[in-house]
Amino acid sequence: MRAVNALANDTFLRALRREPTEWTPIWLMRQAGRYLPEYNATRKRAGSFLALCKTPELACEVTLQPLERFPLDAAILFSDILTIPDAMGLGLHFVDGEGPRFQRTVRSEAEVAQLAVPDPAGELRYVTDAVRTIRGALAGRVPLIGFSGSPWTLACYMVEGCGGSDFRQIKTMLYQRPDLLHRILDVNARAVIDYLNAQIEAGAQAVMIFDSWGGVLADGAFQEFSLDYLRRVIAGLRSERQEPVLDAEGRVVGSRSVRVPSIVFTKGGGLWLEEIAASGCDGVGVDWTVDLRRARALVGERCALQGNLDPMALMASPEQVQAEARKVLERFGAPAAGNGHVFNLGHGISQFTAPESVSALVEAVHSHSRKMRAGT
Amino acid sequence: MRAVNALANDTFLRALRREPTEWTPIWLMRQAGRYLPEYNATRKRAGSFLALCKTPELACEVTLQPLERFPLDAAILFSDILTIPDAMGLGLHFVDGEGPRFQRTVRSEAEVAQLAVPDPAGELRYVTDAVRTIRGALAGRVPLIGFSGSPWTLACYMVEGCGGSDFRQIKTMLYQRPDLLHRILDVNARAVIDYLNAQIEAGAQAVMIFDSWGGVLADGAFQEFSLDYLRRVIAGLRSERQEPVLDAEGRVVGSRSVRVPSIVFTKGGGLWLEEIAASGCDGVGVDWTVDLRRARALVGERCALQGNLDPMALMASPEQVQAEARKVLERFGAPAAGNGHVFNLGHGISQFTAPESVSALVEAVHSHSRKMRAGT
Repeated sequence: MRAVNALANDTFLRALRREPTEWTPIWLMRQAGRYLPEYNATRKRAGSFLALCKTPELACEVTLQPLERFPLDAAILFSDILTIPDAMGLGLHFVDGEGPRFQRTVRSEAEVAQLAVPDPAGELRYVTDAVRTIRGALAGRVPLIGFSGSPWTLACYMVEGCGGSDFRQIKTMLYQRPDLLHRILDVNARAVIDYLNAQIEAGAQAVMIFDSWGGVLADGAFQEFSLDYLRRVIAGLRSERQEPVLDAEGRVVGSRSVRVPSIVFTKGGGLWLEEIAASGCDGVGVDWTVDLRRARALVGERCALQGNLDPMALMASPEQVQAEARKVLERFGAPAAGNGHVFNLGHGISQFTAPESVSALVEAVHSHSRKMRAGT
Repeated sequence: MRAVNALANDTFLRALRREPTEWTPIWLMRQAGRYLPEYNATRKRAGSFLALCKTPELACEVTLQPLERFPLDAAILFSDILTIPDAMGLGLHFVDGEGPRFQRTVRSEAEVAQLAVPDPAGELRYVTDAVRTIRGALAGRVPLIGFSGSPWTLACYMVEGCGGSDFRQIKTMLYQRPDLLHRILDVNARAVIDYLNAQIEAGAQAVMIFDSWGGVLADGAFQEFSLDYLRRVIAGLRSERQEPVLDAEGRVVGSRSVRVPSIVFTKGGGLWLEEIAASGCDGVGVDWTVDLRRARALVGERCALQGNLDPMALMASPEQVQAEARKVLERFGAPAAGNGHVFNLGHGISQFTAPESVSALVEAVHSHSRKMRAGT
């Protein structure tokens, strides 16, 4: 008997469960992206970034592209963190060179009152369709990560209307009308729970919550306006899913329960590491400002850590990239029982990265982490 | 006998020396700025921001403007952090709505080789002239803070040519050609030392080093490319200056040695607080992500702390501003012997701030910190 979609490589999931692994698994935030010529070709065919996100076959195609080039240990759903506010009717669009924008913002009492949790089976159907398509195409090579923006990060875009620099609109609301902001965050938290659970149901084997703007909050405000909602999301997740079990002839003969680990990544949240690690998540993403040795000591056996190479390190020569990768691995140290490390960047990969640098990185992480485990 | 320019209010300097003060001193980064109509009027008269910086009388005028409105406990030289690279011949100019830019960047071996430490008595003469003019105009009301960008922060602008978002140019240099970057930083460190010492000689009673971009560095890289040079700058500062002592008739009858404290502010540097506090500085600036209680426990009696209200808190109503100010004060707690707190924002004040909010803030900091000292 075997489980359907038994994974050929489950290193990533085992690292998140703090179980022993033969090497340190690696995947890269935004690994399906503009640094890959094949991605640019598919995007061109799609016509726009949003069309790419909303067409499951194309989203599947680009999700798999980096895995064809590099022996990465996980795939991540190709999508955008702003699908939820888009499904709320705010009119997501992209302005060249300026990033995402919304046609409508959420600032007044009336605008807040109109917000509703989108049905993942409705407007957001293209996302779960993409998850199912990708799971099929992956055929058990590596696990698939689903994801969402955090309630706070979604709120930033909803209130600002775009990625802010001083976050004046949302912070004005935070300091002037915290009640209004809490109402938005409450809707967002419920929306994120439904959305991630739908991704899990569709086949996502781990989920990641991008709290990309958590780090712009003041100490105190972070706990109240981001962390509390992260905690609520994690508590609302289906942490187990049933996968069918087949017999030798491929007939379904039962099911088994599989844990779906969650990762929280608060960019710039290094100072709150212990609190984030206590949120109930299985892994905490950390950016490059964090000392992994210290981080490991602080979180103990509560969580795995994910990170934390500076994406700009990939601008150097392949030899230099490998040296930087080894530094990150050495900083974490050889994982012991109860610890786990998932190698990643501290932010999305830059469009200016040479694919050869990624090859060098993945090779170095795999080979050096094997050596470290062998104690050589 | 009295010292020339004996200060009517030296609370700020005493807090930095970790001596008892009757209230918590407050000043605001960018306190002479666009949120003040009188500043905008002077700037208009000057013709441009750079003309304002480079005309000592006008720089003096705007430096004093916030002190006329609010009972702030320190004045800060009105200038720009990019005066040094401008004096190196890189051609500083300002593009509306885009911030500072340089006509020439420093990226190649040849460009780095051409860099030289500017003579503070030459191209930068307008800065020391402004310091002298302002000291005269202040007439001992409050101390005058001089300042400079940090070697790393100056290098960011010199290599990028502008304020970056991904810092790709300088980080490519950092990872690919660290030797080249170290040469730039070495020149910058010597330039900052000469520049700050000239300001001290001209009358600056404290100096602040703005490491505005230190927080974009990876752990490890921060220590090597920013902190080491901050340490070198602090070691090179004239930490004492001679001030004349007058007799009752105003005749110079001697001189006395006065300590010139230094403050280091690494924006986003909360994770490296202890290392920064061990750099030799007298005060460490912290942004709003830092928990002041924890920060105080970490630095012990080595340093005073400066900060850390989110500038966006000033967007709220005066009552809310005051509540936020009290939170910051309470978080630090009542200073004891060996500790010092200088109230400030965690970043420059926003141009969208209502002057009434600043009045409310200064009032709350002064009155509440007096109450805390009285134990009420």
